[in-house]
Amino acid sequence: MTLKTLSSWKSHGGTQGVYSHASEACACDMTFAVFVPPQAEEGPCPVVWYLSGLTCTHANVMEKGEYRRRAAELGLIVVCPDTSPRGDNVPDDPDDWQFGSGAGFYVDATEAPYAANYRMFSYVTEELPALVAAGFPADMDRQAIFGHSMGGHGALTAALALPGRYRSCSAFAPIVSPSTADWSARAFARYLGPDRAGWRRYDACALIEDGARFPGFLVDQGTADGFLDTGLRPWLLEKACRDAGIPLTLRMQDGYDHSYYFISSFMDDHLDWHAARL
Amino acid sequence: MTLKTLSSWKSHGGTQGVYSHASEACACDMTFAVFVPPQAEEGPCPVVWYLSGLTCTHANVMEKGEYRRRAAELGLIVVCPDTSPRGDNVPDDPDDWQFGSGAGFYVDATEAPYAANYRMFSYVTEELPALVAAGFPADMDRQAIFGHSMGGHGALTAALALPGRYRSCSAFAPIVSPSTADWSARAFARYLGPDRAGWRRYDACALIEDGARFPGFLVDQGTADGFLDTGLRPWLLEKACRDAGIPLTLRMQDGYDHSYYFISSFMDDHLDWHAARL
Repeated sequence: MTLKTLSSWKSHGGTQGVYSHASEACACDMTFAVFVPPQAEEGPCPVVWYLSGLTCTHANVMEKGEYRRRAAELGLIVVCPDTSPRGDNVPDDPDDWQFGSGAGFYVDATEAPYAANYRMFSYVTEELPALVAAGFPADMDRQAIFGHSMGGHGALTAALALPGRYRSCSAFAPIVSPSTADWSARAFARYLGPDRAGWRRYDACALIEDGARFPGFLVDQGTADGFLDTGLRPWLLEKACRDAGIPLTLRMQDGYDHSYYFISSFMDDHLDWHAARL
Repeated sequence: MTLKTLSSWKSHGGTQGVYSHASEACACDMTFAVFVPPQAEEGPCPVVWYLSGLTCTHANVMEKGEYRRRAAELGLIVVCPDTSPRGDNVPDDPDDWQFGSGAGFYVDATEAPYAANYRMFSYVTEELPALVAAGFPADMDRQAIFGHSMGGHGALTAALALPGRYRSCSAFAPIVSPSTADWSARAFARYLGPDRAGWRRYDACALIEDGARFPGFLVDQGTADGFLDTGLRPWLLEKACRDAGIPLTLRMQDGYDHSYYFISSFMDDHLDWHAARL
């Protein structure tokens, strides 16, 4: 695997880079961002994965997430993947921002023509970790994962589906039950086909109902988030966790919306949450 | 004066807003950003002005500057103006990124056809302060000013030209001698005419040579900044300050470039600098 450096900036004493590579999982070139903290000069550092939401690339959180200062203090590598395969040869639906480019939903598609490229679950949990392990001063025995909205869904489902992989997991305004939310159920049907049994492994609430467990989650959710009642519905995760005995720290943040102005406000708390468990 | 709210987000416990108004100084609609910290609920807060660099609008530092967390801790209002007049009726030179839109250089132009709109010095030091005083919980007796590159030039010259107005001043990679730098001297000639005597009031080094004084400056400059040797040249400010007895804290930051990855790395230090003097 060959990694191409697209950009590299010194920031907060570490290095913020943007890289591309030919992805096998997605059968296209993929771009991702990595922040390496100054502590990496002394030895391998734990890795925190940040999965972004609908319409985002690696760049949104890199520019607006405000994670570098605290990650540099805590000695955390932060990896920010793209949210879907992209390119002229990748099937897309440009009129639908909730499907296709920018909307991979962190699933491995099974339906034609999407199955050839839309394999974001394998990409972020297998191919990219191998690349990070080989190319960066990363301690892969210490990994955490978090994300926003669709990426919060991705983080929760990866943590639940791969026990032992991640030491901690948190989310900003996650889609906790994508199988039953308007903006994701249609995408699931197109990526995964009509049989809803196959959707459950990509649905945090369904995974917990089916027996998946995790040591605990931190979730922040803005009360002024326009997607709260229809798309996000954290009370469904609250119920699933309560029924399963999974500790959930759900913080309803008064007056905050769905934007990076919300995410950046609580970024330090999430990085602290992960650092304490890494 | 009527202020129109374009956007408003809760962030770090305060409010980040974007506003527009019909500007008299610039004879066009102008847009600016204001962060109001949570302490404003208790009473008026000091105001820190951030002037941006070439090609920027109010939005660049708002999205990438990472100033809100520390401003919220310190109780600082942060105002981020645009960098030039804009609009169909404003003369521009779209082929030159160092002149016209995004390149107002914080001067009051005297030359036709620019004198009707390009009055950014009056705009940021007179018209906009009046608007901020009227529309926000601002303690206008406690003001500070800083900026980046062209905006660092703007901050230094405003502080030197208006003694007593600002309690503190700092800059990221400022243009310290715009009269003699390639990328600014051409713009000065078009805004201010060929008589270089009229340029001196908009040139930090010339202002100091001509007797202007200030209690002291903080300047951060990246050593990997591609504009260091030709456009920025902080050693000219160092000499001017030394000759005049003005305390200058000039920090050459190893490996940093001219980007917001540099600015955000030292944003806390600058806000601390101002808070200590407000």
